[in-house]
Amino acid sequence: MNFNIRAASQADCKDISRMLMDLAVHDNMLDQVEISCEDLQRDGFSQNPSFECIVAEVPEENKSKEGKIISSSWKGRSMYLESLYVMPEFRGFGIGTGLMSTVAKVAKEKQCVRFQLHVLDKNTPSRGFYAARGGQDLTDKEGWHLIRFHGQSLDRLANETAKS
Amino acid sequence: MNFNIRAASQADCKDISRMLMDLAVHDNMLDQVEISCEDLQRDGFSQNPSFECIVAEVPEENKSKEGKIISSSWKGRSMYLESLYVMPEFRGFGIGTGLMSTVAKVAKEKQCVRFQLHVLDKNTPSRGFYAARGGQDLTDKEGWHLIRFHGQSLDRLANETAKS
Repeated sequence: MNFNIRAASQADCKDISRMLMDLAVHDNMLDQVEISCEDLQRDGFSQNPSFECIVAEVPEENKSKEGKIISSSWKGRSMYLESLYVMPEFRGFGIGTGLMSTVAKVAKEKQCVRFQLHVLDKNTPSRGFYAARGGQDLTDKEGWHLIRFHGQSLDRLANETAKS
Repeated sequence: MNFNIRAASQADCKDISRMLMDLAVHDNMLDQVEISCEDLQRDGFSQNPSFECIVAEVPEENKSKEGKIISSSWKGRSMYLESLYVMPEFRGFGIGTGLMSTVAKVAKEKQCVRFQLHVLDKNTPSRGFYAARGGQDLTDKEGWHLIRFHGQSLDRLANETAKS
């Protein structure tokens, strides 16, 4: 089947919204969907977009009853904290809290809707630190796994040609 | 103890690099550290920085033998894919591969060193799809958990005042 992958436009938001709902139904998480078509139009297509989205479109003759936009892939701009480190001899003075709070402030300023980070299973003190501040462990709660492409696997993926 | 949280400068990269190594030793992942002080200087303090970093600094009288910069908190700009969806009736035509590859190309163009996403435990087809393309499951392999602050917990964190 022929298909065309292109950057989404504001006019695609209705289709993107429909597919977000379909995905939420599939993942049994419909109660978590709060974003509307209007939110998508505002957040993705204003002067400082907070996400980028690409869509796949099929020719008129292949379209389904919902339309021609049949897929989407979305890159959000949540705040992501790569690492947090306080030297051992300086722990217990609120420095970690100060850093976390500063990053959260920046996230709010940048209108990020969430602030995410990763922590190792065995790092019990940090897990307690985040939990005490209302950070949800989505791996425990919902079963999310972190997948990473880097180095050669990222190169290969970038060079992969979709059969169409 | 008094401390000051501020945006990192290029001159802090030597300290940041030292603390990254300390963190890697703590997490038993020293073999994964490939980034040098020069990489940090280039990637964080050029015209299009690929990360932002804040540091905590103590007064001269409190400094340790390593110096005054005693903590860091780092926000990377890895490519992050929020969601990938292909309508059921259009699966099997390489559309998902095409979307993934397009995002990987954008990641390379933006000089991201990695491309990350999350997948649900129970989503066996997608997990197979990523694994077949070299995506590493870091939750299985290393025990990483996804932590999320949003809504009220994000607000509270942003308003938290560090005791100092």
